[in-house]
Amino acid sequence: MSEIDDQRLLGDLHVLRRFGHHETGVDRIAFSEPDLAARRWLAGHLQDAGLELEMDRCGNVFGHASGVRRAVLVGSHTDSVPKGGWLDGALGVIYALEIARALQPAGLSVDVVSFQDEEGSFLPCLGSRLFTGEFAPATLKTTPGPEGASLAATFEQLCLGEGFARLDRERNPVFFEAHIEQGPRLETADIPVGVVSGIVGIRRSRLTARGRPDHAGTTPIIMRRDDGRTAIRLAAAIPDLIANHGGPETVWNIGTVSFLPGAANVVPAEAAITVEMRDLDPAILDRLEGALQAVVATANDPDGVTVELASVGCVPPVAMDPRLATLLAEAAGRRGLAHMRLPSGAGHDAMILGRVVPSAMLFVPSIGGRSHNISEDTREEHIVGGCRVLCDAVAQAARELAA
Amino acid sequence: MSEIDDQRLLGDLHVLRRFGHHETGVDRIAFSEPDLAARRWLAGHLQDAGLELEMDRCGNVFGHASGVRRAVLVGSHTDSVPKGGWLDGALGVIYALEIARALQPAGLSVDVVSFQDEEGSFLPCLGSRLFTGEFAPATLKTTPGPEGASLAATFEQLCLGEGFARLDRERNPVFFEAHIEQGPRLETADIPVGVVSGIVGIRRSRLTARGRPDHAGTTPIIMRRDDGRTAIRLAAAIPDLIANHGGPETVWNIGTVSFLPGAANVVPAEAAITVEMRDLDPAILDRLEGALQAVVATANDPDGVTVELASVGCVPPVAMDPRLATLLAEAAGRRGLAHMRLPSGAGHDAMILGRVVPSAMLFVPSIGGRSHNISEDTREEHIVGGCRVLCDAVAQAARELAA
Repeated sequence: MSEIDDQRLLGDLHVLRRFGHHETGVDRIAFSEPDLAARRWLAGHLQDAGLELEMDRCGNVFGHASGVRRAVLVGSHTDSVPKGGWLDGALGVIYALEIARALQPAGLSVDVVSFQDEEGSFLPCLGSRLFTGEFAPATLKTTPGPEGASLAATFEQLCLGEGFARLDRERNPVFFEAHIEQGPRLETADIPVGVVSGIVGIRRSRLTARGRPDHAGTTPIIMRRDDGRTAIRLAAAIPDLIANHGGPETVWNIGTVSFLPGAANVVPAEAAITVEMRDLDPAILDRLEGALQAVVATANDPDGVTVELASVGCVPPVAMDPRLATLLAEAAGRRGLAHMRLPSGAGHDAMILGRVVPSAMLFVPSIGGRSHNISEDTREEHIVGGCRVLCDAVAQAARELAA
Repeated sequence: MSEIDDQRLLGDLHVLRRFGHHETGVDRIAFSEPDLAARRWLAGHLQDAGLELEMDRCGNVFGHASGVRRAVLVGSHTDSVPKGGWLDGALGVIYALEIARALQPAGLSVDVVSFQDEEGSFLPCLGSRLFTGEFAPATLKTTPGPEGASLAATFEQLCLGEGFARLDRERNPVFFEAHIEQGPRLETADIPVGVVSGIVGIRRSRLTARGRPDHAGTTPIIMRRDDGRTAIRLAAAIPDLIANHGGPETVWNIGTVSFLPGAANVVPAEAAITVEMRDLDPAILDRLEGALQAVVATANDPDGVTVELASVGCVPPVAMDPRLATLLAEAAGRRGLAHMRLPSGAGHDAMILGRVVPSAMLFVPSIGGRSHNISEDTREEHIVGGCRVLCDAVAQAARELAA
């Protein structure tokens, strides 16, 4: 069994942490100086590991296994949210580097990648979307980049690489990504390895109730068209709606509420809330959306309030490949580590890759479930254990490719 | 019976409308050029009517009946909210001017007043509060006025008058104010005259729920400390709370809601709503506040969410003088005009005066209940009818003063 070098793994993670370090976290948003410096540092390490370096026009960094026709693609992203955590996607990139090094002596081929702007400082999963062709380069001319320039102009100025790397499914028929969980489930269950069943779909709706602004002192209650009251009543109905129509893994959120004009003594003229629902199963999301529409329909018109429900975001769920997931689960078992299957509630590069090639994700526990925050952290034994499990699964996949 | 001059009344109202005219309304906020010009115009008319002019340091304008020791004080305010209606308080001031002129031949004494900044562009009921002594001039040094200057500095610069006029209860033992209703009750009931029973008290509370910001995708529902959900549940309970503990005239409003950080995919860290409750009866307001506290207490702590209820405003109710109200009601009856008693849901200068001298208010219908808006209006027959009724009641009060 090929073995990773624990100290080299941890050492590389801590060196990478210095790029854009901010207190205990990092501030390494896509295209910032720290982000580009980290990518250049990674490039050096990929070359030192004997991999063929490719940095493409958007800053995706690849280390290709040399002299082979097929390789397992492994990686994540090194950009961060503003004042983010030190691990996040960086963990998955350094795992990939370490695994490539660990498997080389056995002749097992790994291509390493750090995608650009997974965090969406400018466009979520920019690098992986360009890589799979989901996002066409022509569109970059009208996509705002740093400091108001278009992304096309940004790339022109940065000269990171010649063209955009494109996925070659013959060469890279499978993709593995490791990431911190960003939630509390593994820690709460005291389980060191998460095998991701899929990445949830998101349905985001904006519910807008419109009534009439009235003086809150002089207008009798019965004569009001109080859209705020309607919006609150609908919002209060959401938990039961989810309980009745959602699945066991459904999550939802009301993250924004706005009342206009927003004065204590004025009956609101407009009240808007966003309702977000996530699940792995598109049928459940369809059912939930239908139920929401039905509830909204009952609130339309009575009391002179109109209610409109608009879809403001729809991300389809992406299933992870069951066979690759089984490789991860089996690898954990062989290492004597417990694992649980769980959906990813957040988007990842594996969501983009998973639409075109079999993909798998491994999660390690997040302390306190913290994420996108400088307090983000993972215990060293979980960092090392996760890398061992991923290494074994990638080794198995690489053996199958070579066969 | 002394008679007002309908055409002079309407003509004066329309001339006053030109000061700061904005489409069909007026923009005449306190201390603006249009506001001061309107006050100077009024001053001229008061002098033309043979009244003794007094403009005080804050811009309160008085026309005192000449050569008498006692007079009925009648008036309201000529300042407006930004882009406000043409009548609002202006109606009550021109009523007072017209009534003073109409009653002069009969030797009945009326003092006319237009108070400054009733609308609270800088301080609600500034003029009447200074007049009754509720607000001490010393405080003006630290009260922000126009363009960042203190009100004290504003007065220094404007040189409107020497000192601040102070209520002399010997001279002015009663106060009458007419105003548009600013609500739909008179129009809906098709009744031309409202006799105000009192000015409601206001209890304004800020309910703040605090939980924990979490990723709305990665954090299972059961592990969240979702203060938004708590705030919505509490807000949704308000209508029943009012129904169970309020009185028949209680009105309430939730006019502001804020969720922080306010992102669709982040479980809110803090959710705040303002709850405003109004009633004439302080016992009812006490009961409602107690019920609100009890409901909030039940929501505190479960789900790891803390809820705080803070009073952010308390205006005690002010009863109008029953005997003066009866004068208005009897005057309406003699004119063959139906009247109804109703509370004022909004504050007025009569709320300030009513705390120290017997005071009464007459309302005329607002078309569509509109107020604080350029669409505000009142039918001419209601404008004229209201002035006749007020004139008769003031005449009766003046006769009693002279007796």
